[in-house]
Amino acid sequence: MRIAFIGLGKMGGGMTRNLLRAGHQLTVYNRSREKAEALKADGAEATRSPAEACQNAQVAFTMLADDSAVADTVFGEHGIAAGLPQGAVHISSSTISANLARRLTAEHAAKGQGYLSAPVFGRPDAAENKKLIVVAGGKTEEIERVRFLLEAVSRAVFIAGREPFHANLFKLCGNFMLSSMLETFGEAFATLRKSGADHHAFLEIMNELFGSPVYKNYGTTIADEEFEPAGFALKLGLKDVRLVLEAAGEVDAPMPLASLLRDQLLTAMSNGQEQLDWSSISQVASRNAGLTIDRNP
Amino acid sequence: MRIAFIGLGKMGGGMTRNLLRAGHQLTVYNRSREKAEALKADGAEATRSPAEACQNAQVAFTMLADDSAVADTVFGEHGIAAGLPQGAVHISSSTISANLARRLTAEHAAKGQGYLSAPVFGRPDAAENKKLIVVAGGKTEEIERVRFLLEAVSRAVFIAGREPFHANLFKLCGNFMLSSMLETFGEAFATLRKSGADHHAFLEIMNELFGSPVYKNYGTTIADEEFEPAGFALKLGLKDVRLVLEAAGEVDAPMPLASLLRDQLLTAMSNGQEQLDWSSISQVASRNAGLTIDRNP
Amino acid sequence: MRIAFIGLGKMGGGMTRNLLRAGHQLTVYNRSREKAEALKADGAEATRSPAEACQNAQVAFTMLADDSAVADTVFGEHGIAAGLPQGAVHISSSTISANLARRLTAEHAAKGQGYLSAPVFGRPDAAENKKLIVVAGGKTEEIERVRFLLEAVSRAVFIAGREPFHANLFKLCGNFMLSSMLETFGEAFATLRKSGADHHAFLEIMNELFGSPVYKNYGTTIADEEFEPAGFALKLGLKDVRLVLEAAGEVDAPMPLASLLRDQLLTAMSNGQEQLDWSSISQVASRNAGLTIDRNP
Amino acid sequence: MRIAFIGLGKMGGGMTRNLLRAGHQLTVYNRSREKAEALKADGAEATRSPAEACQNAQVAFTMLADDSAVADTVFGEHGIAAGLPQGAVHISSSTISANLARRLTAEHAAKGQGYLSAPVFGRPDAAENKKLIVVAGGKTEEIERVRFLLEAVSRAVFIAGREPFHANLFKLCGNFMLSSMLETFGEAFATLRKSGADHHAFLEIMNELFGSPVYKNYGTTIADEEFEPAGFALKLGLKDVRLVLEAAGEVDAPMPLASLLRDQLLTAMSNGQEQLDWSSISQVASRNAGLTIDRNP
Repeated sequence: MRIAFIGLGKMGGGMTRNLLRAGHQLTVYNRSREKAEALKADGAEATRSPAEACQNAQVAFTMLADDSAVADTVFGEHGIAAGLPQGAVHISSSTISANLARRLTAEHAAKGQGYLSAPVFGRPDAAENKKLIVVAGGKTEEIERVRFLLEAVSRAVFIAGREPFHANLFKLCGNFMLSSMLETFGEAFATLRKSGADHHAFLEIMNELFGSPVYKNYGTTIADEEFEPAGFALKLGLKDVRLVLEAAGEVDAPMPLASLLRDQLLTAMSNGQEQLDWSSISQVASRNAGLTIDRNP
Repeated sequence: MRIAFIGLGKMGGGMTRNLLRAGHQLTVYNRSREKAEALKADGAEATRSPAEACQNAQVAFTMLADDSAVADTVFGEHGIAAGLPQGAVHISSSTISANLARRLTAEHAAKGQGYLSAPVFGRPDAAENKKLIVVAGGKTEEIERVRFLLEAVSRAVFIAGREPFHANLFKLCGNFMLSSMLETFGEAFATLRKSGADHHAFLEIMNELFGSPVYKNYGTTIADEEFEPAGFALKLGLKDVRLVLEAAGEVDAPMPLASLLRDQLLTAMSNGQEQLDWSSISQVASRNAGLTIDRNP
Repeated sequence: MRIAFIGLGKMGGGMTRNLLRAGHQLTVYNRSREKAEALKADGAEATRSPAEACQNAQVAFTMLADDSAVADTVFGEHGIAAGLPQGAVHISSSTISANLARRLTAEHAAKGQGYLSAPVFGRPDAAENKKLIVVAGGKTEEIERVRFLLEAVSRAVFIAGREPFHANLFKLCGNFMLSSMLETFGEAFATLRKSGADHHAFLEIMNELFGSPVYKNYGTTIADEEFEPAGFALKLGLKDVRLVLEAAGEVDAPMPLASLLRDQLLTAMSNGQEQLDWSSISQVASRNAGLTIDRNP
Repeated sequence: MRIAFIGLGKMGGGMTRNLLRAGHQLTVYNRSREKAEALKADGAEATRSPAEACQNAQVAFTMLADDSAVADTVFGEHGIAAGLPQGAVHISSSTISANLARRLTAEHAAKGQGYLSAPVFGRPDAAENKKLIVVAGGKTEEIERVRFLLEAVSRAVFIAGREPFHANLFKLCGNFMLSSMLETFGEAFATLRKSGADHHAFLEIMNELFGSPVYKNYGTTIADEEFEPAGFALKLGLKDVRLVLEAAGEVDAPMPLASLLRDQLLTAMSNGQEQLDWSSISQVASRNAGLTIDRNP
């Protein structure tokens, strides 16, 4: 299948390589050209614009930083919407707003192009090692037609429903669940440390209780306060909490825990943690308990 | 070993039977006599007061509802402190305040009695089937001396530290982690349902993402809104959130997420959910999103 | 002075009449034509577009519902920016985002037009009776040149600073202060009522303590639960809380109390209070305390 | 009338002097003897215990720091309950829990003594200058009998209702209203300052908008960050927020704004603000916005 892939960052790079390994023909585009050139050795063809990448594609993947990057890439002068043939489908894997997903659905439909949302859970190493979880949203038949491609980049493919934006909501709600977990560790550890108790010993019990690798990995990161290098930067975590609050606000659903996360993450931003891992949200609880004196290091 | 066991409710009953199965000699006491009589068939000896139960005991377990039940049972006229021989040890498995644990430590020491906190994670069926997680706090040598008893009632024994109250803090913080998880499901499901998305499909993804049996079980309960019969009543969940806030307050550690949980649980209490499972905290988010009309059913 | 006035709703209507009373020449525009026609009797000249209204104006006031109304009115095909002469000044009195205020500043400047933000505090009756409080932001000399116009519609004019958007921030923060006050009444009254205490008696004490007409008026509304007709609709209150959170978020300043207000207002929206007065935020606290059973009436 | 007055701190001292000025006969007691001796010059008689002070009294006032001081003073061996004649009445002006007020009501009744709660609003200078606001709770006839005494120490006397503890609830809810106001200033000023806006100019507008001396005074304190000397220490503010949450919790009424205040005040405590004025709660918002670097000064 002829595939265009736009956005060759840490996530997109890994996904691209897995598609190439699966034997697909790829035309790729990235804003900074070097990343596209680097994939030539793996068999990809570099192009000079999203539109050019899509010219003969049956499927166009995007994996970009945020709403504005996706909107520019799709709706810009040499964008995907301009280049993608009728009948071809755009698969958006970026973590974007429900709102933009609805706009993409409508505008691609108006041009006779298909659209699927297929955001992913997993960090760059999971992208590299085909360990992502893909959440696909869109028309069933359209998803089934490209399912083998989604499987080529992931360990599991889940269907969110027939509305593409539902997949984006799932991704945002999933990140909400994850960041809530980070906050619980932050608060529990702060109380334990301030009380003179051993928070590492507590973590071992939580590992037994929850039996979750995610709790284990993040719990260890937080217990050890190893927030660099960031697996997922705190400012991106804040972006996603904003998006889940926005989506919930559209249907008048309050999410007080998400509001709390937003406030803690803003506090972290204002205290120099922008580029640290999002699990460093725990430092807000530490500081508020008077445990950490150093700030704006 | 001669063991006294006081408090034969759903949790204490299961623990007692496991101690009997392990071949120990038990004198038991329960406020309502029938439960003690019922254990006679299993080989336990029923007594008429905590003091009498402890008279010849080397170890006295307590598994009671709350601080006030424990204080009455220990410090009352015919209480444990009055009956337990010097050198014997009181093992408190109830979920009590850090504050009471410190008082128990001090008062038992003043009488030449030992004291350990050994609260447990797990529901009644786990107590029955030796699947509890025990968190022991106290002097290492004292814990080691009774470790085989803790192992007789559990699937795993963890050491919190040399301060007994640290074990109670661990238990309270663990319940905080669990109830936070319940709230995250409540908020995410409410937003998804209000947006027309399939929250059961979302749960499947969370099961893959977290890989945790606890998420799976509670997530299913909440998705299906099956809050009766209660595995752990909401009013008890509220009690524990209050205790963790109290303990954190003693060391001036704010726990804003625990504050949120307290507010949601109070709302649930005021809306007729006192006897439902604590996972019904999710109904607060549902109602706040306008999803559930029926109240005070 | 030749003045254009665009937006003749409850607020704009009162302001317009005060400008006419002060002897100014007005060309007016409103989306629904009748309101413009109605002002003819008072001496205003009705026009068919914002651009036409501004054609010979030295000053153009706008008093519109929200960001999108202002953006359409200013940047639309027959908008203010297209019609207003060079050197003339646009005075925006709407409650809009800091962000839009900055855009207006920049785009008017690019066209050689002046721009001032001059949002107001006060309800429609205050607009009618020249009792508004005006908060002006912009270049000092520009404000001074039109100060007599601002004084013609208000009881007091305050200067926020040289940045127009600062005036909008002041307005949003002021509404945050007001809605916070509403929430405090809601929570205090709910606790008192649930405890069997007389919340009207409490209100009298608060009137003595705060000595504030604003506390007295809103406190009475809330104590009596007289939320219709709305002086300021709850959905508009929510809009403003969203804007203050957005503005604070732009500078990474957490406002946890504003977050709480947002969540309470969303809950109110989902429970049928959209068109009630914003002081009905208090009903959320009432319901959460189990005081009010009826919902979605 | 023969009056006993127990508790001669900053508040009690001023009240005592006003009672003496009104011509009453006072026996006084204070834990640290000097304060009682100092009042001899004004005509009071110093005693060696609360019981002795009450021996011939018709009315016994208490003005003490907290629940534990009141309980000790009333129920201790040489306490008020032991010394006060039958038919005499104890007027408690301390800020205490609703719970203790109920216990005082019951225990005094059991001894044939009367009991009224009469907490006050106002700082030490108001106590000195007869500017307090008294909130009286208890049987109407009992309040009427001593009303002239309450008037002798205050600018206004309000009746909360026939239940003494309602007066204590009113006091706690009033302090909740005040501390909420402090938080609103903190958040608004932080957002304005971070945005480069002039928060002093904003305060002037709030003064016009609210027209409240309380807003003006506290707003100025917070804008100027003049938190020493403390008019009311932050740790006492935290005590009162805890008490209002406890009282609300007893009737299952959530007060999320009070929860937020508790968390902010705990953060302040952990960051060295214990002895600063409670209005320094605003520094938490400042720090969270990254405005203040210095901590634990």
